[in-house]
Order: sequence, then C-alpha cells, then structure tokens
Amino acid sequence: MYVVKSPLADADLKAVSEALQGALVDLVDLSLVAKQIHWNVVGPRFRSIHLQLDEVVDSARTHSDTVAERASALGVPPDGRASSVASGSGIGATPAGWIKDTDAVGAMVDALGAVITRMRERVGSTGEADPVSQDILIGITADLEKHHWMFQAEHA
Amino acid sequence: MYVVKSPLADADLKAVSEALQGALVDLVDLSLVAKQIHWNVVGPRFRSIHLQLDEVVDSARTHSDTVAERASALGVPPDGRASSVASGSGIGATPAGWIKDTDAVGAMVDALGAVITRMRERVGSTGEADPVSQDILIGITADLEKHHWMFQAEHA
Amino acid sequence: MYVVKSPLADADLKAVSEALQGALVDLVDLSLVAKQIHWNVVGPRFRSIHLQLDEVVDSARTHSDTVAERASALGVPPDGRASSVASGSGIGATPAGWIKDTDAVGAMVDALGAVITRMRERVGSTGEADPVSQDILIGITADLEKHHWMFQAEHA
Amino acid sequence: MYVVKSPLADADLKAVSEALQGALVDLVDLSLVAKQIHWNVVGPRFRSIHLQLDEVVDSARTHSDTVAERASALGVPPDGRASSVASGSGIGATPAGWIKDTDAVGAMVDALGAVITRMRERVGSTGEADPVSQDILIGITADLEKHHWMFQAEHA
Amino acid sequence: MYVVKSPLADADLKAVSEALQGALVDLVDLSLVAKQIHWNVVGPRFRSIHLQLDEVVDSARTHSDTVAERASALGVPPDGRASSVASGSGIGATPAGWIKDTDAVGAMVDALGAVITRMRERVGSTGEADPVSQDILIGITADLEKHHWMFQAEHA
Amino acid sequence: MYVVKSPLADADLKAVSEALQGALVDLVDLSLVAKQIHWNVVGPRFRSIHLQLDEVVDSARTHSDTVAERASALGVPPDGRASSVASGSGIGATPAGWIKDTDAVGAMVDALGAVITRMRERVGSTGEADPVSQDILIGITADLEKHHWMFQAEHA
Amino acid sequence: MYVVKSPLADADLKAVSEALQGALVDLVDLSLVAKQIHWNVVGPRFRSIHLQLDEVVDSARTHSDTVAERASALGVPPDGRASSVASGSGIGATPAGWIKDTDAVGAMVDALGAVITRMRERVGSTGEADPVSQDILIGITADLEKHHWMFQAEHA
Amino acid sequence: MYVVKSPLADADLKAVSEALQGALVDLVDLSLVAKQIHWNVVGPRFRSIHLQLDEVVDSARTHSDTVAERASALGVPPDGRASSVASGSGIGATPAGWIKDTDAVGAMVDALGAVITRMRERVGSTGEADPVSQDILIGITADLEKHHWMFQAEHA
Amino acid sequence: MYVVKSPLADADLKAVSEALQGALVDLVDLSLVAKQIHWNVVGPRFRSIHLQLDEVVDSARTHSDTVAERASALGVPPDGRASSVASGSGIGATPAGWIKDTDAVGAMVDALGAVITRMRERVGSTGEADPVSQDILIGITADLEKHHWMFQAEHA
Amino acid sequence: MYVVKSPLADADLKAVSEALQGALVDLVDLSLVAKQIHWNVVGPRFRSIHLQLDEVVDSARTHSDTVAERASALGVPPDGRASSVASGSGIGATPAGWIKDTDAVGAMVDALGAVITRMRERVGSTGEADPVSQDILIGITADLEKHHWMFQAEHA
Amino acid sequence: MYVVKSPLADADLKAVSEALQGALVDLVDLSLVAKQIHWNVVGPRFRSIHLQLDEVVDSARTHSDTVAERASALGVPPDGRASSVASGSGIGATPAGWIKDTDAVGAMVDALGAVITRMRERVGSTGEADPVSQDILIGITADLEKHHWMFQAEHA
Amino acid sequence: MYVVKSPLADADLKAVSEALQGALVDLVDLSLVAKQIHWNVVGPRFRSIHLQLDEVVDSARTHSDTVAERASALGVPPDGRASSVASGSGIGATPAGWIKDTDAVGAMVDALGAVITRMRERVGSTGEADPVSQDILIGITADLEKHHWMFQAEHA
Repeated sequence: MYVVKSPLADADLKAVSEALQGALVDLVDLSLVAKQIHWNVVGPRFRSIHLQLDEVVDSARTHSDTVAERASALGVPPDGRASSVASGSGIGATPAGWIKDTDAVGAMVDALGAVITRMRERVGSTGEADPVSQDILIGITADLEKHHWMFQAEHA
Repeated sequence: MYVVKSPLADADLKAVSEALQGALVDLVDLSLVAKQIHWNVVGPRFRSIHLQLDEVVDSARTHSDTVAERASALGVPPDGRASSVASGSGIGATPAGWIKDTDAVGAMVDALGAVITRMRERVGSTGEADPVSQDILIGITADLEKHHWMFQAEHA
Repeated sequence: MYVVKSPLADADLKAVSEALQGALVDLVDLSLVAKQIHWNVVGPRFRSIHLQLDEVVDSARTHSDTVAERASALGVPPDGRASSVASGSGIGATPAGWIKDTDAVGAMVDALGAVITRMRERVGSTGEADPVSQDILIGITADLEKHHWMFQAEHA
Repeated sequence: MYVVKSPLADADLKAVSEALQGALVDLVDLSLVAKQIHWNVVGPRFRSIHLQLDEVVDSARTHSDTVAERASALGVPPDGRASSVASGSGIGATPAGWIKDTDAVGAMVDALGAVITRMRERVGSTGEADPVSQDILIGITADLEKHHWMFQAEHA
Repeated sequence: MYVVKSPLADADLKAVSEALQGALVDLVDLSLVAKQIHWNVVGPRFRSIHLQLDEVVDSARTHSDTVAERASALGVPPDGRASSVASGSGIGATPAGWIKDTDAVGAMVDALGAVITRMRERVGSTGEADPVSQDILIGITADLEKHHWMFQAEHA
Repeated sequence: MYVVKSPLADADLKAVSEALQGALVDLVDLSLVAKQIHWNVVGPRFRSIHLQLDEVVDSARTHSDTVAERASALGVPPDGRASSVASGSGIGATPAGWIKDTDAVGAMVDALGAVITRMRERVGSTGEADPVSQDILIGITADLEKHHWMFQAEHA
Repeated sequence: MYVVKSPLADADLKAVSEALQGALVDLVDLSLVAKQIHWNVVGPRFRSIHLQLDEVVDSARTHSDTVAERASALGVPPDGRASSVASGSGIGATPAGWIKDTDAVGAMVDALGAVITRMRERVGSTGEADPVSQDILIGITADLEKHHWMFQAEHA
Repeated sequence: MYVVKSPLADADLKAVSEALQGALVDLVDLSLVAKQIHWNVVGPRFRSIHLQLDEVVDSARTHSDTVAERASALGVPPDGRASSVASGSGIGATPAGWIKDTDAVGAMVDALGAVITRMRERVGSTGEADPVSQDILIGITADLEKHHWMFQAEHA
Repeated sequence: MYVVKSPLADADLKAVSEALQGALVDLVDLSLVAKQIHWNVVGPRFRSIHLQLDEVVDSARTHSDTVAERASALGVPPDGRASSVASGSGIGATPAGWIKDTDAVGAMVDALGAVITRMRERVGSTGEADPVSQDILIGITADLEKHHWMFQAEHA
Repeated sequence: MYVVKSPLADADLKAVSEALQGALVDLVDLSLVAKQIHWNVVGPRFRSIHLQLDEVVDSARTHSDTVAERASALGVPPDGRASSVASGSGIGATPAGWIKDTDAVGAMVDALGAVITRMRERVGSTGEADPVSQDILIGITADLEKHHWMFQAEHA
Repeated sequence: MYVVKSPLADADLKAVSEALQGALVDLVDLSLVAKQIHWNVVGPRFRSIHLQLDEVVDSARTHSDTVAERASALGVPPDGRASSVASGSGIGATPAGWIKDTDAVGAMVDALGAVITRMRERVGSTGEADPVSQDILIGITADLEKHHWMFQAEHA
Repeated sequence: MYVVKSPLADADLKAVSEALQGALVDLVDLSLVAKQIHWNVVGPRFRSIHLQLDEVVDSARTHSDTVAERASALGVPPDGRASSVASGSGIGATPAGWIKDTDAVGAMVDALGAVITRMRERVGSTGEADPVSQDILIGITADLEKHHWMFQAEHA
C-alpha cells in the first residue's frame, strides 16, 4: 500500500532502518525500565534517585519519538509495540518488586551501558549509508553517556 | 524485605491492588499503542490524528504514573515492565506497519472502549475497599471517556 | 443518525442526561447573568464586584463546557442554545439597566443559591446511575458554594 | 437613577447605542451557537472544526465584552441576557442534536455572514455620530470577516 | 540642524503637531495626577482605588509614549518636560496632602473628563490632515472613556 | 451576628464541621512541623530532606486553606489560630533543636501517619452528610498518603 | 472554481484588492531587503543595526500576513511569490555584498520611504470602498513611519 | 551534638539569636492571624480585605523563613512550633468566629503595630553585634511598615 | 573593501560558499511558497493544511537565517534578495490563485522533495571542506525530511 | 484629618520626610528628563541611547514609587505633582527640541550626577533618624551610580 | 586616560576599592572551584551535591558581577583575569581529579569559610568610607553564610 | 580510586581527553576575558559592546560545562581551576585597566580567533577516535565562529 519515497538507495536503507528500529526498541524499553524503578526504589537515597529516573524517562521518550519519526521519514514503518519491545530490547530483565537504592543505581548503570554499546555500533553502521540518521544517533548517544556517567559517579 | 505499611485491611488491599495493577498495565499499553499509530498513520487526515494521538499519550502516561504511585502508597509494588504490559493488557493486538487514517480512528475507538469497560469494573470493585483509590479511578475514567467520544465522533 | 455508544444502561442514561442537560442550561445562564451585572453594576463597590463577577463567569463557562462534553461522551447531544437557556434556566429574571452594587451582590446570592439547590439534587440523582458524572457534579457544586459564600460574606 | 454622562449629543447617542446593543446581542449569540456546534459536530473533520469553533467562541466573547463596556462608557446600560439574545439575534435558528461536519461548516458560514452584514450597516451608521465607537466596530468586522473566509475556504 | 522629513504638507503638519503636543502634555500630567492620588488616598475604599489608579498610570504612560513618538515620526520634536506639563496641562490643580477616597474618585472623574473633551477635539481636527494620527488618538480616547466610565460608575 | 446559610441540615452540618475543623488544625500543624524540621535537619541527607519538606509545607498550606474555606462555605467559622493548633493537633510533640536526618524522616513518617488515620475517619463520617466535603477530604488524603509513601520508602 | 463571496460591490472590490496586492508585494520585499542588510552590514554600528533590522523583518512579516489574509477574506487570491515580489515591489534595487553601516541606514531610510509613500496612497484610495481595509492599512502605515523615524534619527 | 560554627563571638551571638527567635515567632503568628481573618472576615469590604490579607500571609511566610534560616546560618536552631508561637508571640489574642470588615482592618492595624515595635527594637539591638542580621531585619521592617500604612489608610 | 577572514582555505571556501548560497535561495523560496499556499489553499482540509504550512514557514525562515549567517561567518556575503531567489531557486513554479487542498499537499511534496535532493548533494560536497558547515546542513536536511514525510503521509 | 501614626519621633520624622520628599521630586523629574531625551535624541548612536534611557526611566519610576510610599508609611503625604517637580527638582533645565546623541549622553551624566550628590546627602542625614529609610536610599543610590557609570563610560 | 569621576574622597576610595577588588577575586574563584567540584564529585551523594554546587556557582557569578560593576561605578577598573584570580584568591588549593562526596562537602565548607572571613573584614572596613558599597557586601555575606550553613549541616 | 568505565579504547581516549581538556581551559578563559572587558570597556560604543560581551560569556560558560561533563562521561576528570586556566589557555594576555571600545573589539577578534584555530584542530583530531565528542566540538566551533564574525564585522 502506501510508501513514503525514501531518499536512500535500497542497501543503504536496509542498514539504516535496522539501526533505527533497534534504537527504537531499546529506547522505549529504557523509558519503561526507568519508570519501573522510579516507582519501586526504596532506601535512604529514594528521593534523589526517584527524581533522577524521571529525567532518564524524559530523555528516552524524546529520543524514541525522534528515531521512530526518522524511520517514517525514510519510508520505513517503525514498531514500538509492547510485545516488540519485550522481545527485542537489549536491556536485561528487571526483577519485579521493591528494589534497594544501591541496586537501583546498579541496574541503571547496566541498562544504560547495554543501550550505549548498541548505539555506538549503530553510529558505526549508518555513517556511510545516511549521515543524517547517523547525526541523530550521535546526539542520542551523547545524552545517554551523560546519564551513564551520573549513575556511575554515584555508584562509586 | 521492605514494606510500606498499608492503611487498608488485607482483604480490601487485595481488591484494590488488583484493580490498580490492572489499570497500570492497560494505561501503559494505551500509551504505547497510541504512539505506534501516531507514527504509522497515513491518509488525508494524517495531521489531525497524529496530533490527537499525542494527547492520548499524554493522558495515558500521566494516569499510569498516578495509579502506579497509588499502588506504592498502599504498600504494593507496581509492575509496568514491557513483558507484563505485553501479556496483561486488555487492548487487542495492533497490526504492524502503515495504517490508514480511518482504520487508525477505528483502532483507537476499540482500544479506548476495551480499557473503559475494565476501568468501570474497577470503579465498582474498589468503592467499598478504598474510596480514595476509587476516586482516582473515577477521574481517569472520565478522561478516557472524553477521548473515546472524540474518536467516535470522527468515526461517524 | 450518528450515535455515540453509551457506557450506561438506558435507565441510568436517562437520569444522568437529564441532570447534565439541566446543569448545562443553569451554568450557561449563570455566565450570562454574571456578565450582565458585570457591565451594569454601579456604586462605590463597583470595581471589586466587577472583577469578582468575571471570576464567576470564568467558572461558569468552564463548568458548562465540562457538563456539555460529558453529555456528548455519554452519547447524548447537549443543548446550550440561547432559547433553551432562556426557557430552561433555574435562575430568576434579571432586571435590565443599571444595578446598585448592594443589589448586584444580592442578585448573585440568589442566582448562585438557585443553581446550587438544583445541583445538589443532581448529585443525589446520579450517584447510582453513573458515579463518574456524579463526581463531576460534586466538583462543580463545591466551586459554586465557594462563590456563594463570598457573595454572602459581603452581603452581611 | 445613576447616569454616566455621555460625551455624545442625544441624537448621536441614540444611533450609536442602537448599533452597540445590536452588536452585543449578535456577538453573544454567536458565542453560544459556536459552542453548541463545538459540542455537537460529528464526522471525519470533527477535531479540526471542534478546535476552530473555540477560536470563534473566544473572538465572540472578547468582542461582546468590548461592545458592552463601550455602551456603558457612553452611559447606556447594555443588555446581554439570554432572553434578549434569544429574541434579538440576527442569526437564524440552530437545529438541536448532532450535526454533520459539512453542515456545521455551512451553518457557521451562514451565521457569520448574517452578523457581518449587520456589522457593516453599524459601521455605516456610527461614523458621523461617534468615530470612537465606529473604530471598535470596524476592528470587530475585520476579525469576523477573517473567520468567515476560513469557513468559506473549507466549505469549497 | 537635523530634520525628520515629514510625510505631511506644512498646513496639515501644523494641525497635527498641535494636537499631538497637547495630548502629550495632558497624558503625562494624567500619569502624575493618578500617581499622586495613588499615594495619598485614604478611607475604606483605599485598596481598590489605589490599585485602580495604577491601571490609569499604566495607560497614561503607554499613551504618552505613543503620541510623543508619533510626533517624532512626523518630524516634530515632542516636549514632555515637567515645566511644560505644569503649564500646559488641561487638568485642573490637584490639592496636596491626604485625600478621602470619595474625593479621590471625584477628582479622577474630573481629570479624565477634562482630558477626554480635549482628545475628542483633537480627533476632530486631525482626520483631514492625517488619518494615521487620528486613528491613534481615537484608540486613546476609547481607552480613556473606559476608565472614565469606571470612575463614574463607582461615584454613583 | 452574621450567618452564611448552610446548604446542609443541622445534624449533617455538625458532623461535617467537626471533620473540617479537625482537618484544619491537623494540616496547619503539619505545615509548622514540616517547616520546623526543614530548618533544623542536619546530616548527609540534609539537602534532599530540606527540599522534600518544603513540598509537604506547600501541600499542607494549600489543603488547610481549602478545608477552612469549605467550612466558611457551609456557614461555620474556621479556627486556625496558633493556640487552637497547639492544643488540638493530632500530631505528637516535635522536639526542639537540631535533628539528625534519619530522625527527621522518622518524625515525618509518624506525623503523616497520625494525620492520615484521622483523615480516613473523617472521610468515613462525612459521606452521608455531605458528599461534597467528603470528596475534598478524599483528595487531601490521597495526597498525604503519597507523601507518606515517599518518607517510608526512604526510611527503609 | 472556488469563490469567497465578497462583502464589497465590484468596483469597490477592484480598488481595494489592488491596494492590498500592492501592499503585500511591498511588505514581503521589505522583509527580504531588511534580512539581506541584516546579514551583510559591517562597521562599528554593526550590532545595533543588525538587531534593529530584525525588528523591521518582524513587522514586515506580520503586516504582509495581515494584508494577504485580508485579500483572501474579500475573495481575492493574494500573490506573494518571489517573482511577483521581484517585479512588483516599490523598493529600489539593493546592491549585493557587504554594506557599510552608514549606507545600510541610508538604504533603510529609502526603502521605508518608498513603501510609506505608496501606503499613504492606498489609505487614500480605500476609505470610501472599504473602511475595514483602510483601517488595516492605516495601522501598518503608523508602524512603518515609526521605523522610518528611527532610521532617519540615526542617519542625522 | 552537631554545631554550625558561628561567625560571631558568643556575646554577639546571644543578642542576635534572641532577636531572630523573637522575630520568627512574631512572623509565624502574623501569618496565622492573617489567615484566620482571611477566612472569617464578613461585610461589604470582604473581597478586598480577603485578598489583601493573603498578601500579608505571603510576606510573613517569606520573612519567617528568612529569619529562621538566618538563625541556622549562625549556628542557632530556630523554633517555630505551634506551642512556641502560641506562647511567645507579641500579637494579642484574636477572637474566634466571624469578624466584621471594619474590625478586621483594626485588628490588622494592631497586629502589625505590635510586631513593628518589636522589630524596631531588634534593629537597634543587632547593629553592633551583626550588621548582616540587622540588614535582614531592616528589610523586613520596611515591608511590614508598608502593610501597616495600607491598613491604617483604609481604617481612616 | 571589508573582508571577514575565513577559517577555510580558498578551494574549500569556494565549495562551501556555493553550497550555502544555494541553500539560502532554496530556503527563502520555500518560505515564500509555503506562505503563498497558506493564503490560497481551499477545500475541506483548509484549516489543517493552513496551520501545517506555517510550521514549514517557521522552519524555512529559521534555517535560511542560519545558513546566511554561516556564510557571513566564513567571510562570504550571502544573497537573499527577491530577484536572486526568483532566478536561483530549485523549486518549480507555483501557480497563482486559489489552490485545492489536495493539490496544495502535492505541491508541498514536490517543493520539499526538490529542496531535499539539493540539500543532500550539499551535505556530500561540504564534508571534506568544512565539517562545521556540513553539520548545519545535515541538521536542516533532517528537519526538511520530517516535513516531507508528513505531507507524503497525508497525500497517501 | 487622617493621620498615619508614625513610628518615628517628631524630630527624626522631620529629617526623614524632607529627605524622602526631596528624593521623590528628583526621581520623578529624572524619569521625565530621560523620557524627553528618549524621544528627542538624534545621531548615529540613536538606537542604543534610546533603549538605554528607557532603563533609566524604569529605574526612576520604580524608585519614585518606593520613596513616595515610604513617606506615606511614615505618616507624611508625598507630593509628586508636575508643578512641585518643576520647581523642586535638583536637575538643571533640559533644552527643548532635537538633541545630538553626544549631548544626550552628557546631559544624562549631569542629571544623574546632580541627583546622586543630593541622594548621598540624604543617606547621611537619615541614618540616625531612621535606618529603615536610609537603607532604601542606599539601595537607590547604588542603582543610580551604576547608571551614572554607564553614561560616563560611553562619554569617554 | 579615561576616568569615571568617583563620588568618594581619595582615602575612602582606596579602602573601598581594595575591598571590592579582593571580593571580586574571591568570588570568581569560588565560582571556578564550585564548578570544578561539580564536575569531579563522585559517591552516593553525587547528584545532590552536583546540583547544590550549581547554586553556589550562580550566586558567585552574580555577586562577582555586582562587585566588579560597583568598582567601575566608583571609577576603579576591576580585575577578574584568570592569573589575578589564581594569585589573589583567599581560597586554598583544590586538588585535581575525582573527589569523594564527603570530601567535596568538606572542601566547600572550607572554601566558603575562607571567603566569609574576608568578606566580614571588608564589611568592617567600608562602612565609614562608603555605606553604599558596604550594603552590597553585607548582602553578599548573608547569602554566602546561608550556603555555608547548608554545607555544614550536611557535613554533620 | 573511582573510575568511570570509558566507552573508548585507550589510544582513542587519550586523543579525545586532550582535546576536551584543552577546549575546557580555552572556554573558561574566554568567559573570564569577556567578563573582564565587559567591566572595563569605555567609549561611545560602550553599551553595545558591554551587552554583546555578556552573550559571549553565556556561550562560553555553557560550552565549558558541556566539554567538562563530556570528559567526565568518558572517565577523565576535567580540570577548570584558575591556575590551570591561567597557565593553559590559548588566549593571549589581556591588559589590566580601562580599555577603549575599538581596542575591546580588536581584543575579542583576537581571543576568539585563537580559540577557533585550536578548536578546528580538535575537530580534526577526534573524528576517528570518537564521533560523539567530535560532534560536540563541531557545534561549539560553529557558535564561536558566529561570534567571531560579529566582532570582525564591527571591527571593519
């Protein structure tokens, strides 16, 4: 049926669309994981981490919207449904129930680390094919690495 | 481990926590489904529906945060993880790929209808046990029914 | 022709829609009466009452929109036309022409009192049929009773 | 009783006060008609028209306040009561109940057209008597003609 | 020395510049008189009048800036110095010292009335010569007459 | 002397006014206790708790205003004087002087717990007599229980 | 094809539409000329003029939108395309390349002077035919003459 | 236990801390008294005084926070508990129940007068010991004397 | 005469300045074309497209300012005059007069498509010569491709 | 008639009220002189000085309000009428007509210098009598000396 | 070359300018030290201290601007260059590299303590010479002592 | 002690961290130099340059924060202490004392030119090692080159 005419050649489009779809799934999951811990964290550092996690949620939601709309702009329908997120995310399982503040910080260090590793691979795989998409992924990576530093700094 | 002391008796707490957990899963999924269609809708009414869906997303995100934090306030850890949403949501499957504007409106009429039916049951099951939680669910239902009317009105 | 599918059973819908339509007519008239006096009040307290009346206008406009859209959400087309308001309002006749400040306050005490009495009856008649609509009417009543107190306090 | 001393001679005042009172009734009715259709419109263009009508409501409310206060400033008590609006408005009857989007646009083209015709006559009848009031009526006419164009443009 | 080239013929310019210079002096004095009473008013209505007078001050300051810059735009240097205001204003003398609230309202009715009479003459004398300047004076007159009504209304 | 005419029957009014007066005293004291600890807390978590306490102060001030004005609206003069608060509050004594951060959190868990228990009794005692007042008390209870959860979560 | 029904008689419409179309072309060109100099000005007064020119751009863009939409409202399709602007503007040629600050001010004095002369003719030619359009042109002229004064003042 | 190292010598600290603690108690009580009258005032001037009192409440709350945190900054734990306020305030008893508008103004004249007298003594006693604290007390006194003038002016 | 010292070597500067000048002309024309259609569009989708076009205008104006000032920063005077735009733009001719909504969307799909093709070539030609300018062109391309998707989506 | 009870002894009051009345007259005149030059300045630095003068106007208006209300708070009616300003100001005569930019700066250096000299004398004469008033005069002096520096800096 | 005429006698000016120059150097260094620790702090309290330090940076930047411009206003050129700050600051050396959260708090207690001691000496040395400068230094000291308390409180 | 795990290989990290640390020192110094001149500039263009320099300060502060936090995110502790800035900056010495406006502009042309040259080298040295850091440096360079153009333009 409907096709947005892509400005990219087919081979380039394939590489870029895989990178964007992968990023979308990771970023939606990051927003859900950060909210999950936002609600379940306990311990003396509760308030500080509770607030910090909402900043991750805001970042992840904004970035997921950006990559999904970038995929649409290239003519590729994005998929951010719950089941796709549950099966495709690069973030490991988050346990249910209350989570101690120290463990919460550790969980975010791991979650962000996993997404960043994959984002850097996507930066590498898109530069030739589409510098416009690559530039978007670079900007998102910078922001995620800033969040990663902060959780690492307080995990010292 | 950690327990928030609930202001409710055990039986009341059970009824209320089931209602809140069910509402959480439905509302998170509603936000994901609305975003999915926001990105994939095509057709002459694209722009109007694209914008309208972001208002549903805002509502669903705000309400999901409210019910999750209400569960925490009653001493029950909420669960809003992708896999829990994927398996527990009351909204039927959303197809992948581009979706015609008319079908998008129909899909939202169905999704909102499914959530509203379950929310009204939760309003009924919580009034005795905890009027504070019931009042929250009533307010959310009013808002969802307003969105439902608007999609029905443009589906005429 | 077009029907919004109501979430209520027919008997419940009848009771609720009468309450909402009655509230709509009262609230639109309240906004017109308050504006009429806003323009025509004279006397040493002119400025204070002139400003206070615009707060009533704002409340009445907001509440009338809420109840009209609630009716639509239940599948019942609301009627806020001038002739319907003129014939159906519970507020007594407002005389034409300049009105002394003391009389203006008295007129608002009476107008709000008349609407509040009818709103409390509507709160009573809707609780069984639709707690969602009742909750909306309760919130409006609280606001009208606050305005009523203020006009009574300065009518002492 | 109280009289605001008019800056106009008696004959001038008569012409101007008739123009202002006529404008007031038309503008209040325009705000009620636009709200009525805002609540009752159905069809694929629901959302666009629903939003557009609230812009008409805002314009009509602002302009009605301006002309009413202008009448007061000239020493003539304005009359914007529901019954005066119902009997004196230049806008034809609006049918009750749901209204198709295409019909809604047509109804607004007619309503604005009727008010504009009368406003232009008022511009003509007040220039000699009071250029200050005329200038106000000119500004309102410009705004109404802009709304009129937009509804005509989408009625094409 | 320097001359801004006027878009008006000499005779027209003379009429218009007299009107603008006269308006400037009246408006600067209106701002000083309103501030004087703002500081010195006493009596039960103190607060209401104190606040209302600052709205007159804001209007008068804005309008005086508009007419002075209009004179400059026509190539005529405006004069708003204290001595020029003291000698040229159309507002009668304001007594020094505390002033009762009722007297304060009366003083403002008189001051605004004096300025309005002169403004209407200026509207009459500028229409032929420069409709652009006349339009500015019409707008200022409308605003002053609105303030005048309010003080008259509370002087009833 | 002056009486605001209550919309409630006498017996209902008695129950409701006791609930509102009790809530007023508790909420004013909650604002004073939270400010006291805001100024006196010491320890590594100083800043986080210092800021969190001001959010409790804001809530308590807003809610105390709401219940006091609700009492006035029912015709019952509210009493929020220091001596009435000192003698009638349901919150236990707060020790003078510096308070360790851990103790500060514990003190807030206790203070909020005491007020919530009494608020839930008031929700129970007002539903029959005045659903409008009950709805206000329900909303306040929801907010206090959210604050209570947060202090409990960081007291784990 | 489509026609917006004009409120004006044919002869009047012809005069007014010529005035509006001429104003549109002049104002769009004014915005482009001011931007051109905004980018190319050099000299010690660079920053002041660079900022001042963006205020002209804002005015010219706002006014061009107003006159274009006024033409549409009268049933006449406006033409603001680059080629129409290039051929129809009343502003003389602007040289390419860097421009000294003193020359930049002189160029703006000339450009504004040329547009103002034509605007005053349009004010004269539309008063009979359509006072509503004339009022719009008067307001724009006032604003352009204010900008003109400022550039003349600093060109002294 | 914990001590903030004071920048003052012991004798100076004693004088300053007494002044600050006294000011704290007076200012907290002023906020409670002003709120009490805000809720209980009746009479024709109700609205004006009701609003004016909230400005006193805002001032008193801001100033009490400033002096309490100043005490902490000097190493002296402040005491703003209800019982300390009830016993230590320099403001006389406020009667319970409705209060006529004229009496309300009189009560505020007295309350502010009592606090100002004590604040001026504190300004005198702290200048030598700590000009930083004195400067804070001077600023608060200026603000209280402004409120005092306004209530006196309307008590004339 | 005056020269801004370029940070680039001559050959690099030539490539980059051609790219920037070309982008400037395209973007200014895009803003004029989008405004032209904004004023002339008719049909049932009028309002949605009318609003959407102003978002394109905002983007195009912002981007044209960015590239023009980038040229200046490299020492190359930009040229955005009407005649340069008329002769150099890559967008095809826009017909005069009213334009049906469907045709309007098609025209924007074409106009954006033409500009994007040229922008991608400029991204390719500037990366070696000046990564700073390339980064600016990449960001603009991303934004234009987002607008392009939206018009394509509603042209389906 | 009415007397605000002064917190000062008679001799102190006399010294302070003379200082405040003198400051009032100087500051009102400063605002008028700065506006006069704001309208009449010409020359290459027109725009910069035109804007800078409005910052002086804002300062002078704010400070004049502060000292006038301080006088009222001490029980002394302030006098800011045009004739009092014309006769009592410490600022020398300002010539009528256009004023060159360099002369404008020089005139402001002189005007501010004259006011500052007198303000410093008032700071000296009020410290004993009323440190609260002195503190206000000190703050105003600091602000005037900042403006003075800026005009001197650009007069170099 | 250029001299701003100082309002102070030479001996007074010398004392005041030394105080201001000393304060400038301390405050610029305080802003740099606080930023340094803002970037390098690690440990569980990272986020809280990271945010708190930016509040110190904001204070220090604002205050340094105030004292530098005060020096200029007195005719003394301020010196805030990196080398002057490095050699003249009263704050001890800050070690390079990551810093534990507890050490970070201790470092800020020391840095603020050092600056406060010197600021209090400056308050003492300027009162005679220039009460205007002294008042500025008093206000800055109050703010620094508030920051000092907070770091001490969390260092307990 | 603590280490943030870098996403880069060791050799890459070395190149990138040198670039970031160099950029940090240059940018902090740029903010100090711009402030120094902001305070010391004299001459007819004082105000324009004084304001322009604060825009450079804002840019330099924002960018220095970005590069310092980027270093932290890569696991390298940044060093922005006064002594490091004094010894490591690429900007030449700024003379103490008053500086003529023309010299001030020249000093900024030189300072910005020195920093830009080094920033372009850093852009070149980081692209291979870390495109994320490079992208940040590119954005900063674009902004600095815009400031550079403006100072060059007014130095013509």
